[in-house]
Amino acid sequence: METHVKTGARPVKPYENNRARMLISCPDGPGIVAAVSHFLHQHGANIVQSDQYTMDPEGGMFFMRVEFDLEQLEDRVAGLKNDFKSIADKFEMQWNLYQLSKKKKLAIFVSKEDHCLVELLWQWQAGDLDAEISMVVSNHSDMKEYVESFGIPYYHIPVTPETKAEAEQKQLDIVNGKVDLIVLARYMQIVSPALIQPYRNRIINIHHSFLPAFVGGKPYAQAYDRGVKIIGATAHYVTEELDGGPIIEQDVQRVSHRDNVSELKRIGRTIERVVLARAVKWHIEDRILVHQNKTVVFN
Amino acid sequence: METHVKTGARPVKPYENNRARMLISCPDGPGIVAAVSHFLHQHGANIVQSDQYTMDPEGGMFFMRVEFDLEQLEDRVAGLKNDFKSIADKFEMQWNLYQLSKKKKLAIFVSKEDHCLVELLWQWQAGDLDAEISMVVSNHSDMKEYVESFGIPYYHIPVTPETKAEAEQKQLDIVNGKVDLIVLARYMQIVSPALIQPYRNRIINIHHSFLPAFVGGKPYAQAYDRGVKIIGATAHYVTEELDGGPIIEQDVQRVSHRDNVSELKRIGRTIERVVLARAVKWHIEDRILVHQNKTVVFN
Amino acid sequence: METHVKTGARPVKPYENNRARMLISCPDGPGIVAAVSHFLHQHGANIVQSDQYTMDPEGGMFFMRVEFDLEQLEDRVAGLKNDFKSIADKFEMQWNLYQLSKKKKLAIFVSKEDHCLVELLWQWQAGDLDAEISMVVSNHSDMKEYVESFGIPYYHIPVTPETKAEAEQKQLDIVNGKVDLIVLARYMQIVSPALIQPYRNRIINIHHSFLPAFVGGKPYAQAYDRGVKIIGATAHYVTEELDGGPIIEQDVQRVSHRDNVSELKRIGRTIERVVLARAVKWHIEDRILVHQNKTVVFN
Amino acid sequence: METHVKTGARPVKPYENNRARMLISCPDGPGIVAAVSHFLHQHGANIVQSDQYTMDPEGGMFFMRVEFDLEQLEDRVAGLKNDFKSIADKFEMQWNLYQLSKKKKLAIFVSKEDHCLVELLWQWQAGDLDAEISMVVSNHSDMKEYVESFGIPYYHIPVTPETKAEAEQKQLDIVNGKVDLIVLARYMQIVSPALIQPYRNRIINIHHSFLPAFVGGKPYAQAYDRGVKIIGATAHYVTEELDGGPIIEQDVQRVSHRDNVSELKRIGRTIERVVLARAVKWHIEDRILVHQNKTVVFN
Repeated sequence: METHVKTGARPVKPYENNRARMLISCPDGPGIVAAVSHFLHQHGANIVQSDQYTMDPEGGMFFMRVEFDLEQLEDRVAGLKNDFKSIADKFEMQWNLYQLSKKKKLAIFVSKEDHCLVELLWQWQAGDLDAEISMVVSNHSDMKEYVESFGIPYYHIPVTPETKAEAEQKQLDIVNGKVDLIVLARYMQIVSPALIQPYRNRIINIHHSFLPAFVGGKPYAQAYDRGVKIIGATAHYVTEELDGGPIIEQDVQRVSHRDNVSELKRIGRTIERVVLARAVKWHIEDRILVHQNKTVVFN
Repeated sequence: METHVKTGARPVKPYENNRARMLISCPDGPGIVAAVSHFLHQHGANIVQSDQYTMDPEGGMFFMRVEFDLEQLEDRVAGLKNDFKSIADKFEMQWNLYQLSKKKKLAIFVSKEDHCLVELLWQWQAGDLDAEISMVVSNHSDMKEYVESFGIPYYHIPVTPETKAEAEQKQLDIVNGKVDLIVLARYMQIVSPALIQPYRNRIINIHHSFLPAFVGGKPYAQAYDRGVKIIGATAHYVTEELDGGPIIEQDVQRVSHRDNVSELKRIGRTIERVVLARAVKWHIEDRILVHQNKTVVFN
Repeated sequence: METHVKTGARPVKPYENNRARMLISCPDGPGIVAAVSHFLHQHGANIVQSDQYTMDPEGGMFFMRVEFDLEQLEDRVAGLKNDFKSIADKFEMQWNLYQLSKKKKLAIFVSKEDHCLVELLWQWQAGDLDAEISMVVSNHSDMKEYVESFGIPYYHIPVTPETKAEAEQKQLDIVNGKVDLIVLARYMQIVSPALIQPYRNRIINIHHSFLPAFVGGKPYAQAYDRGVKIIGATAHYVTEELDGGPIIEQDVQRVSHRDNVSELKRIGRTIERVVLARAVKWHIEDRILVHQNKTVVFN
Repeated sequence: METHVKTGARPVKPYENNRARMLISCPDGPGIVAAVSHFLHQHGANIVQSDQYTMDPEGGMFFMRVEFDLEQLEDRVAGLKNDFKSIADKFEMQWNLYQLSKKKKLAIFVSKEDHCLVELLWQWQAGDLDAEISMVVSNHSDMKEYVESFGIPYYHIPVTPETKAEAEQKQLDIVNGKVDLIVLARYMQIVSPALIQPYRNRIINIHHSFLPAFVGGKPYAQAYDRGVKIIGATAHYVTEELDGGPIIEQDVQRVSHRDNVSELKRIGRTIERVVLARAVKWHIEDRILVHQNKTVVFN
């Protein structure tokens, strides 16, 4: 892929300089959409896309994603955020504003299986993942040469039972404050709570089963033993509970008695990489809100 | 199903008395969402759900579906509509307002194959199709007893080459002004332009192929001859062009060389009834906007 | 559906009088296919379809389904079976021979939800389930009139904690020896081991989740709470372990955060009835072999 | 991927030395399966897998794929083939015997879009495509460096209206007799009949639509204009009729009004590469028989 290599971030397209997205969660009540859209209109912003969802019209939560254009955004964004505070306070909103010109920075964690990493890098090269891949972190050195051929730094941090604590500290030192999202692309180690905490809802893992079926290790062997007729994969945010975090995306494929464990793994690899790439894309495009242990995905 | 029979319309639930939906299409421009949501808020309405879509941020069309609650809607709806006119004029909107208490009236057209009709009646009985089935019209008498056992009037209007014009006039007399939606549930006659015109975007047909593949007659035989590996069905609004109207919904299922034409028909029947029922449900719930020859479906 | 009512079994088509199927399981070894096909050829039978599968070429199990035509089958079937014994003994086969003229007899068990029952009856009427529906058994009386309108006997056997043992005995008395297959079409009672034992691999249940996810009660509520993005249904043979028997068929559909529990149930109903009907059809067509806790399905 | 590079063919596994597959087509008649399985058994072969299919029990075609182990195959294969001739003649069979130790040689043709090529190379590296990739041929030089990094020869043969005949002759010279299968991995030129003829049913193309919908150029633009709700891709053998050859595999994905042409292309790329890779895998594994313009795929 050397002929395609693009080091660092995806280029900023001209229109992205003036485009931003807001993600808003708050208790539902009258007038929220009116307040937000009126606020944006008053400030000269033009809404390009807007999605809302109310979990339960009777006293449920309200979720909103709004994408808008505003001339000279860079100069005005601080003021805009400041002005929005009174609305946010009134409706008890949790909210974030993301400028499209600020590409999210990703760290990809990987072990020995390369299919998810290869997919993410291919989609990134093709322009489908609009982010910066800042680094790849691995407990093995297998992918070093491949990753570096893209101009992406590769950190080989071996993990053994004895050095686990030390290795986790190294990981934390490398990523913390430097990346916005951590993608576990078939990283076969359990991630430290010390990493989960600062990256709450910002670590995406791919689990190679249709969760909550086959939690834990060797899910394809479990699936084969149970004789399921469909296998799947699940992308989810990582929480302290193993394979228990908010589900972002799942997909499946039909299998039959003819497929042994190794066939299930082969079929599963394609599901895994497609599901993980979708979840990462949606996170990058600010399409996901998390409430309790569930996601709202505006896609 | 006699124990379940409910003649006429689905019952109106209490919350439905004060709930309405607006469907809006207009050229995109700044301030539309703000104007609509501000208008509703000012009039005391609470937005329950809202969807927007802009076909092309640069000079494209804007589509909106907004569902809201308003106390004493029945008394205030005329005023609301009247007040909205200035906004509609300003943004050159095409719009409609639907009250949930006014159940849409359906006529189902059917020939000899019963699977789509049975599905619609079963879903209607189960409460999944929130409409009134006002009548069934058929060029055959086969379903008469079955339909009447639900308390639904059955009009048998035979169609022969000689009597086609007369039969079409009879159909028009029976439905026109009395129903809001015509569903062609495997009605194997071409519908008259005289019926299409007053029911523009209000006649839904199920075509037993994955359009635009296999337009016209005997699509399963065509599919078998071409050796496709997936078959499908398409629900679309009826226009003067045969099988050429705006597509509402499609679905497919995998087949193999083992499936002969009669197997394809059998498999296809389940796709057809599910796809048709989804399209009818979405129409009833005011989720579909048509622009040129395409649909925007907010589901 | 009165115009369609057909009491009792599906009619026997002429070609079915001379057609039979054999299902064979045995340890794999050289010469099995040759022995079976040679045997049939010698006896004047013409193989119409044949499927084999070897679980593991190194010392695994071998499974075979063979469908053949033999003139004057009825007169010759006893001799054929007798002659086959030496082959069966040599290869340690478990085997069965089914004549297509002997339609399998079904008992359908149902509680209050009617969608699976309605689907089975509709498919049976349409000729897609080539069996005799001998009776419907229910712990409620809701479906009595509907079922009897097809000319099918309806046994209402209420089940309460106090009368459970007695009710189970009644069920056993009614079905035992009179039906070949029991279909639990959303029958919401746990079936007695006394019934399971004589009907080993001949009771099919539909579970309203993608097993092994959400075993036990209220699977749609469980699915909603877990926030899955795909829901499913599973048809399996009933064993003494709740929801743990051999899986026959599964299917799924995509859902989103917009779907609450009642929407999941609605979507699930269509998956359930389609999956159950497929499993029943495959059993009726002798396409399923069970080995340990898994199925081989030749479809 | 440098760390993974494997030049030339996939390694031959020990069991493959004694394994072969036969593909047989002939008019159906009594005794075919018996004759073939008896023949193999007599010659000491052990059938590992066997699939049959009869297109129409009344005078249709019969298709068979049989995989078997035979000690010292290499020494005995010529004799085996010679002995089989009398059976083949008796039943008017068209047949081929493939040894697993002889890996098929592939030429991949590509233009500027790299996703199908990247997928094939990744699957080949992962061991999922059990073949030798002998060369890549392109009318552009874009992929040269990338392909050569795998140790695979890259032939850049520009095609212009003026040089088309000459370029086609060059292609023919390069591949003819040297490769067993040509894969058009988004090769955007029409292939010459001079190439099709010697490679009848041995050239696989990926068309970026759900054929027969959207034959010809710009299928995603056509799909967008027609407003379809599902898009797909089709892998087929190339014949003289554009996009009209026997379909091997198809798959689809749901889209919505939100997806513009460039989104359709992005979604389509994943369908295309998965569908093409499946078709190539099945061809390599001798799972496909062609009859008239349709395929029988034993998978």
